[in-house]
Amino acid sequence: MNRTTLTELTSQNVAEALSFAQQAMQGAGEIALRYFHQPLEVDNKLGEGSFDPVTRADREIEAYLREELSRRYPDFGIIGEEEGAVPGSVDTNWVIDPIDGTKAFISGFPTWGVLLGLQQGDRILAGLMYQPATGELFYGSAAGAFMRHKGRLVVMQTRQEASLEKALLYCTHESMFANENNLAAFRRVAEQVRLQRFGGDCYAYCMLALGQIDLVIEDTLQPYDIVPLIPIIEAAGGVITDAQGKTPVAGGFVIAAANRLLHEEVMALI
Amino acid sequence: MNRTTLTELTSQNVAEALSFAQQAMQGAGEIALRYFHQPLEVDNKLGEGSFDPVTRADREIEAYLREELSRRYPDFGIIGEEEGAVPGSVDTNWVIDPIDGTKAFISGFPTWGVLLGLQQGDRILAGLMYQPATGELFYGSAAGAFMRHKGRLVVMQTRQEASLEKALLYCTHESMFANENNLAAFRRVAEQVRLQRFGGDCYAYCMLALGQIDLVIEDTLQPYDIVPLIPIIEAAGGVITDAQGKTPVAGGFVIAAANRLLHEEVMALI
Repeated sequence: MNRTTLTELTSQNVAEALSFAQQAMQGAGEIALRYFHQPLEVDNKLGEGSFDPVTRADREIEAYLREELSRRYPDFGIIGEEEGAVPGSVDTNWVIDPIDGTKAFISGFPTWGVLLGLQQGDRILAGLMYQPATGELFYGSAAGAFMRHKGRLVVMQTRQEASLEKALLYCTHESMFANENNLAAFRRVAEQVRLQRFGGDCYAYCMLALGQIDLVIEDTLQPYDIVPLIPIIEAAGGVITDAQGKTPVAGGFVIAAANRLLHEEVMALI
Repeated sequence: MNRTTLTELTSQNVAEALSFAQQAMQGAGEIALRYFHQPLEVDNKLGEGSFDPVTRADREIEAYLREELSRRYPDFGIIGEEEGAVPGSVDTNWVIDPIDGTKAFISGFPTWGVLLGLQQGDRILAGLMYQPATGELFYGSAAGAFMRHKGRLVVMQTRQEASLEKALLYCTHESMFANENNLAAFRRVAEQVRLQRFGGDCYAYCMLALGQIDLVIEDTLQPYDIVPLIPIIEAAGGVITDAQGKTPVAGGFVIAAANRLLHEEVMALI
């Protein structure tokens, strides 16, 4: 069996891992599509009052990816939304969000995605987002950001000319902001942009990479919600940070912008 | 050439028209996909301060559909978003929204659709929504509501067991409400449901028909925004009305619900 046990990942190793991850995503997507647009049993992780649906699809996809990835990369750790962290023997982890955007998923909206990232310490080496209903696979690494769709490979690039007054801003929902201050910061930006829309989910970050929108501002993100998207945004020319301007490996409040000047305009407002 | 000039449309005639419309939608979708996920020139119909993008895709699709439909049905009138109303010699009109959800379109989100309705007086005989990026065609008439996708035909049915406290409610954006009263009415409903999400566009009405969500409440809709969706909702078992409980052929404030009891619960709140 083909195994990778290196502690130092060369760009060649990362390219191989990214290629393997793309194959694994196909299998994950097939599982997801068995449940998408079907009636679903929805559990509620948080109990009464809050609504965080977890579906069988989530659990099956994560189990599938854990098995595939640990067979090929037995030394890597795996951090997943559903089953938590399983440390590896080296400081390299796969980060899995089996269905990011579960609320979109159960509503039948194709803005959710399977997320997979490869992280070494605080460096995110590669990230993938797969939307199997549209068939779009988005991925990024030091080698660039790409969209693969129906056999076509598109090099993704953010809008380098985007400015605040012309920006298209997305956010999944205002209820995601942790407190009044963070919500007020979001609204100060929203008042300045040309167009603000909700309901983005992880698809919004990929549309930013593809040069369709210019800003995503969200809050209370978990690491697995955002880590796989960081290399996609950065390799496409975008800037993604937390409120302190650092790479948002811990999640929380996140600003993704199409370019550095736009990011600076936003940071001045929040 | 095959022409239909009847003033009285039998169910057979409607089935033929619906079949012809499905073919025409394919051509419309091909035009749309030439522009989707590409950099776009966006005009602004309303001038400064407001943002209502009109793309070349809109105009080309409407021109294409007008030509196709008027060749096959020369006596029917055509009402379209871009070119207005061209009366026919009989009281039957095609209603076209070439790209409903232009803001989603220019943002790269596949929640827009090409809308086409067949209206005789105040009766909506048939309606179609086509989302070419996902390949999903939704349509409805007295013969039923269907989703056609990758060669598969799905009979659509709304959730007959849905109630307010368990409902999933969609609305494109709160900025669409015409005044504080209408917004307050929407919020009273939003506070009662299990899950409320924004960013639905016309895809939300189709997800209601498919039994994925339960409510859509929107405002300031134009007739062409909603007329083609009415038969899809109704044939799937849903109820769609204006604030007075009438079929919303004039647009405006619209409530679409998965069943009559849920619709009554909402009407009592607004």
